[in-house]
Parts: sequence; C-alpha cells; structure tokens
Amino acid sequence: MDTIKQYIRSVPDFPKAGINFYDITTLMKDPEGFKLALDQMEKFVKSKDPDKLICIESRGFIFGAALSDRLDIGFVPARKPGKLPAETISEEYELEYGTDKLEIHVDSIKTGDRIVIVDDLLATGGTMLAVCKLVEKLGGSVEGVSCVIDLEFLPWREKLQAYDVNYLISYDSE
Amino acid sequence: MDTIKQYIRSVPDFPKAGINFYDITTLMKDPEGFKLALDQMEKFVKSKDPDKLICIESRGFIFGAALSDRLDIGFVPARKPGKLPAETISEEYELEYGTDKLEIHVDSIKTGDRIVIVDDLLATGGTMLAVCKLVEKLGGSVEGVSCVIDLEFLPWREKLQAYDVNYLISYDSE
Repeated sequence: MDTIKQYIRSVPDFPKAGINFYDITTLMKDPEGFKLALDQMEKFVKSKDPDKLICIESRGFIFGAALSDRLDIGFVPARKPGKLPAETISEEYELEYGTDKLEIHVDSIKTGDRIVIVDDLLATGGTMLAVCKLVEKLGGSVEGVSCVIDLEFLPWREKLQAYDVNYLISYDSE
Repeated sequence: MDTIKQYIRSVPDFPKAGINFYDITTLMKDPEGFKLALDQMEKFVKSKDPDKLICIESRGFIFGAALSDRLDIGFVPARKPGKLPAETISEEYELEYGTDKLEIHVDSIKTGDRIVIVDDLLATGGTMLAVCKLVEKLGGSVEGVSCVIDLEFLPWREKLQAYDVNYLISYDSE
C-alpha cells in the first residue's frame, strides 16, 4: 500500500498557504507507479462487473481511461458545465466558497446500468456525491467508487456512506 | 479508417450556432470504438519510441492515459494555468477572441527526452504548437503528434509543418 506513496510528491502551500498538495503527476510520470495504482484499481473495478465507468474531469479521466481500456468497459465523462455537446443533466455541489456543477450526457447511462465512478482523490466528497446522484437520476446503480487517495481528515465518509468506496492510500493530515 | 467515424456523433450548433461539433464521447462510451482508435494511435506512438507522452487537458488525457498504460510510457499532463502544483513553464496561444495558456511541470521532461504529444483534435493547431514549444524549451524533442480527428478546413497544417502529425479520421467541413 505504501509503495504507491513513494511515487506521490507532497507540494507545500498549494493551491494556497498552509495546504499540502498531494501531487499524483509524479506517479503517472513513472510507468511503474502508474501501473501499480492501476493494477489495484482494476481489481476493485472488475469485482463490481460494471457496464460503464463514469470518470470525473479531469484527473479522473486519466485513471478511468486506462481502466476502461484494460477491462473493455465504456468510458463516460462527468464534466464541468458547457463542455458536453449533447443533452445533459447537471448536479450542483458545494465548494469552500460558492457552488459548482457537473454534467453528464443523458444518453450515457441506461436504466439498470451497473456503474463504477472513478476519480483521483476523496476529500469533501461533494463532487463524488453529485456524480452518484447523476448516475441514479438516469436509472443507473452505483456499484462502487474507485479513487487513488483518501484524505481521511476530510469528511467524504459521511457524504458517501451509502456507497462502496475503494481507495489505495490514505493521508491523515495536510 | 471510416469505421471510427461511425462511432462519432455530430452535434449541430455547439458550442454556438452554425458550428457542427464532432463528439467523441460516443466513441469512448463503446469499448469497441475506443479500442479501435487506441489500436491505431498505439501503432504510431510505438513507432516513435518515446520516453514520455505529453497529454493535453482534458480530452487528450483520455487517449494519452490508455496509450501510456499500454506502452509503459510515462504520462505527463499539459494543463490550464493554476492546476499543476510544482514549478511550471507556460506558453500562450491564441483563441478566436483573446489568448489562453498551457503549463507543464519543469521536471516532467529531461534534456534529450523523446516526446509524443497526444490530444483528441487538430483544429487551428494553436494549442498543439504551444505544447511543442514547451517540450522544446525543456530540451525534449517532439518525435510526433497523435490525435483522433483532423478538421482539415482549419489551419493546423501550416502551424505544425515542422512536426510528424498522425490522425485517424478527417472532416472536410463543419
């Protein structure tokens, strides 16, 4: 488990003073690190036997695309407003100051589709919960959530308690 | 070649009236379509024997991540300003109105690194040329550029004439 941590760089004071940012670009830059993370995510995703992977813009795209290719599962993006060209539904979530939205194409999920959602990081859980709601609005069932990093000092567990959440490594402080 | 086109949806009047948007989400949603595109990109990328893939935010992440995993090549993101946490260099490019920037981590490319750049679409070529310049500023050599779609009525050929550009399908009008 901790081997993955060796590939992740900690950047102090990003995006602002006092915040320690866990940077996964050093993991992805190293094919061994990237593969180590993907191998573990693949096991969880495969165990859920999903029909589609919903991948959250934009770091979720990176892990989700490789997993989609490995497992022959359709890749569906959840994106910021105004990026998806066809008919969408959207769900709002809270930021530290204000709110933001994520969108998904309405024809990307069919009633009864088994869905796993992929992102890089679990923090407040707001983004992930919004995507869970989008999936359910379209009649899909959220079989699991797969991420690389758990920031265990942030409150995602409370928000996502209804779901089966898998992560590879945990950090207990910023 | 045209088989890939069967997976791509054309959405009229997006992002604005009169523009026909070629939507690759229908390609990625179908594992056969996604694989068809990746198989062809993989051949080109492999022939260039790169040390790193530079993948452009955010649709370039999707194809680049899967290729990086298939070929055991490091994945390096080129991102919008303010997204990469460590030291970056940036390059400006022109939009229809105004300018934008892309950034790359300075330690993501070493002098002499052989680089292939991955994105979804060739249009004006402005974004791609900016990324070529970033690679060269860091001492890397751009061995090739790999994209899915060529919009042949837009002027990317002129901007990128110094580079070996590969694409899978062409559209001759909006």
